[in-house]
Amino acid sequence: MDRFFTFVGGSAGPWKVTTKTDVAGDGLPAVDRLDIVSSAQPFVPELAAVTWCLRGVVSNERYVTRSEKAALMAVQPPLGRAEASCAAFIALSKSPEWWGLTQDERRAILETQSRHIATGLNYLPAVARRLHHSRDLGGAFDFLTWFEFAPSDAAAFDQLVGELRRTEEWKYVIRECDLRLIRSSDS
Amino acid sequence: MDRFFTFVGGSAGPWKVTTKTDVAGDGLPAVDRLDIVSSAQPFVPELAAVTWCLRGVVSNERYVTRSEKAALMAVQPPLGRAEASCAAFIALSKSPEWWGLTQDERRAILETQSRHIATGLNYLPAVARRLHHSRDLGGAFDFLTWFEFAPSDAAAFDQLVGELRRTEEWKYVIRECDLRLIRSSDS
Repeated sequence: MDRFFTFVGGSAGPWKVTTKTDVAGDGLPAVDRLDIVSSAQPFVPELAAVTWCLRGVVSNERYVTRSEKAALMAVQPPLGRAEASCAAFIALSKSPEWWGLTQDERRAILETQSRHIATGLNYLPAVARRLHHSRDLGGAFDFLTWFEFAPSDAAAFDQLVGELRRTEEWKYVIRECDLRLIRSSDS
Repeated sequence: MDRFFTFVGGSAGPWKVTTKTDVAGDGLPAVDRLDIVSSAQPFVPELAAVTWCLRGVVSNERYVTRSEKAALMAVQPPLGRAEASCAAFIALSKSPEWWGLTQDERRAILETQSRHIATGLNYLPAVARRLHHSRDLGGAFDFLTWFEFAPSDAAAFDQLVGELRRTEEWKYVIRECDLRLIRSSDS
């Protein structure tokens, strides 16, 4: 599996942007469409159609325990389900304070206090998810997360995002941009 | 601080290679000298003097707890000490099995079973160290570690490396190349 993906915002691609919410920090320039390109090398765009490129890498997991992973794997769906025609692209960065915390401190905030993993589990198998790390690639955001779900689960997804944004963990989020999209073949 | 560094092996640079040991897996081509370049962008070498370039990033810490970090910070020395004219560059990769382990499993092997952090602490303040992550940059190795110490501590450094190589953690090391170097201004 290629672990590197570039999210290409512009006027081309199979995903049409429906809403853009700049939740915290500097916003992302508005785009009509999003393409997702898998490539080990940084993607070099044809500039005319591209407003921004955000690159991330699927890495090893940083917080889940074996028992949590087993629970997740039992119910997590793959990307690309035919019925999952809705998507969200959430790009976010955490503060230098977060990154200065040790592993035990970050785990305590993320799960013991904020129940990030357990909350996500409540929304499976409705929501498929792929997390990309971007901070250590020198990216503009620390994390790029891609979600896919059916239109009938869009309200549940809003609820999931709302729950997470009210947690202790989210106090460390200093930049967050949230795009919602629908799959659309006409481009 | 720039977090990105490229280790440039070739015929130039302030560090002269004294020995090269290919401990496990494919070896590194022999070079006479090593330069260390700090740059956010991938370093583009003048090919004549360069045999290989290995790029890594100083990232957030993945395993130490706050109490361990406090113990380390109390005694760890900086790089660049005048008396630390000896260095080691150890590049290594771990197996896919390691990267498939969860955080709790990796922590248990690294510290509970292998005492990696506690063992390293025993060799402070003699040995200065900077760990660079390379796996998520698509590098040939997962980790690049740079060590500096005085000639009088060279035997202790050998002992440290020997202790670590006998641990459970090291059973997951599938490639390891070890360069020893001395600071040398004549190039």
